[in-house]
Amino acid sequence: MTLPAPKCKLQHDLRHHIAACALFSDLPDTVIQEFCDVAQLRHLKKGQVVYLQDDEAEWFYLIVHGWIKLFRETMEGSEAIIDVLTNGHTFGDTSVFEDGRYSYAVEVVEDAALICLPTSLLRDTIATHHQLALNMLTSMSRHRLQQHREIEHLNVQNAPQRIGCFLLRLCPTRDTGSVTLHLPYDKTLIAGRLGMKPETFSRALAKLKDDSSIQISGPTVHIKSVQALVDYTCSHCSSTFPCDDLR
Amino acid sequence: MTLPAPKCKLQHDLRHHIAACALFSDLPDTVIQEFCDVAQLRHLKKGQVVYLQDDEAEWFYLIVHGWIKLFRETMEGSEAIIDVLTNGHTFGDTSVFEDGRYSYAVEVVEDAALICLPTSLLRDTIATHHQLALNMLTSMSRHRLQQHREIEHLNVQNAPQRIGCFLLRLCPTRDTGSVTLHLPYDKTLIAGRLGMKPETFSRALAKLKDDSSIQISGPTVHIKSVQALVDYTCSHCSSTFPCDDLR
Repeated sequence: MTLPAPKCKLQHDLRHHIAACALFSDLPDTVIQEFCDVAQLRHLKKGQVVYLQDDEAEWFYLIVHGWIKLFRETMEGSEAIIDVLTNGHTFGDTSVFEDGRYSYAVEVVEDAALICLPTSLLRDTIATHHQLALNMLTSMSRHRLQQHREIEHLNVQNAPQRIGCFLLRLCPTRDTGSVTLHLPYDKTLIAGRLGMKPETFSRALAKLKDDSSIQISGPTVHIKSVQALVDYTCSHCSSTFPCDDLR
Repeated sequence: MTLPAPKCKLQHDLRHHIAACALFSDLPDTVIQEFCDVAQLRHLKKGQVVYLQDDEAEWFYLIVHGWIKLFRETMEGSEAIIDVLTNGHTFGDTSVFEDGRYSYAVEVVEDAALICLPTSLLRDTIATHHQLALNMLTSMSRHRLQQHREIEHLNVQNAPQRIGCFLLRLCPTRDTGSVTLHLPYDKTLIAGRLGMKPETFSRALAKLKDDSSIQISGPTVHIKSVQALVDYTCSHCSSTFPCDDLR
């Protein structure tokens, strides 16, 4: 979807978010300003499509707040969720190394504000500024590690453990006692994110509740003992809690 | 494992393999020569460990021939296979963007010849040669796409379809008629590569044989109709056959 642009008044805020993004770290002010000058802030509602798979990749995006999902659709219509992202993450940027088209579709799953930036400027700046290439390499390398862990979990963890891992990543603290937290988006999407059908997710959640004494009421989750959940989940993972690299 | 080095006599061959690797494309001859000067050719037998997860990343590797597996071990001892690679692939190179340690272990699964190159030279050359950074970005972007597909398949395809997909990627031609091919490594490893326990793999293979009339005898697979296998498998994928980007 091409996004025509009501120019954002809050240039200062835009600049703050862009400069804080790891992709732009250690770049000269003049380069950051070039991106700020053409940046557009867009507010999108839950359910809005940002772009479709195979669309021409005109823009890439930095999430200011909200949640979006990256997904691909199979020939017979199933949806495979590749990732669900929030504040501070970019998406669509790697299209500049592909064939100039998006390799997945993106939809807003919780009302979001996105900074839209032209891929043409990204492509040109990577060609001329070595630091930007290095930043992208660092970011892609980190992402690659996360995907390795993702594949590992899909291979080795059972469904209740995958939910346990998802909850542990939401824990706001390294405290191993009790924690109350809120699910960031709805359970159907969590199921999809974890590669489960809704009915598998429900059964797995029931088993997780029994096995590790967590309580769930609507979007609120109470974990009586984070340590007990760690014991239950993290023995089937190659990392140890807290695994900050996966947040 | 540190690899002390009997210097390879076949400098010409080494240079040929290094220059043909996408990572080094469009680099000045002098830069390629620097890598050739310190390259070491190692022959490793099936079962030999190249390095362990968290080892200091002193070397990265280019596969001349053979097969290696990338894997991680969970706390309770299960092995999650991240990837299985052959000719022309590099591994260990992304460690320069991590903390200087390997994020996965590597073991030879079919006798292999590997060109070993120092990560310190890679790190220094990326810092000074923009083209090398761009080559790595292109390579990592392609790898990212492959991992997205991997996650998609683990989420959306059933076990027989995942085996069907594995076989289709081995098909040497775009011919949609009959094809005979050889499994590149043993079935236990294929099961692991596809995220299946051996017993799940056996059941899924039996079902695939029934559903799509393929015949398997030892390492030899006869596909009567590639088109029938495509119909069976690729409707549950977001790509269409032949998907060259996944080979």
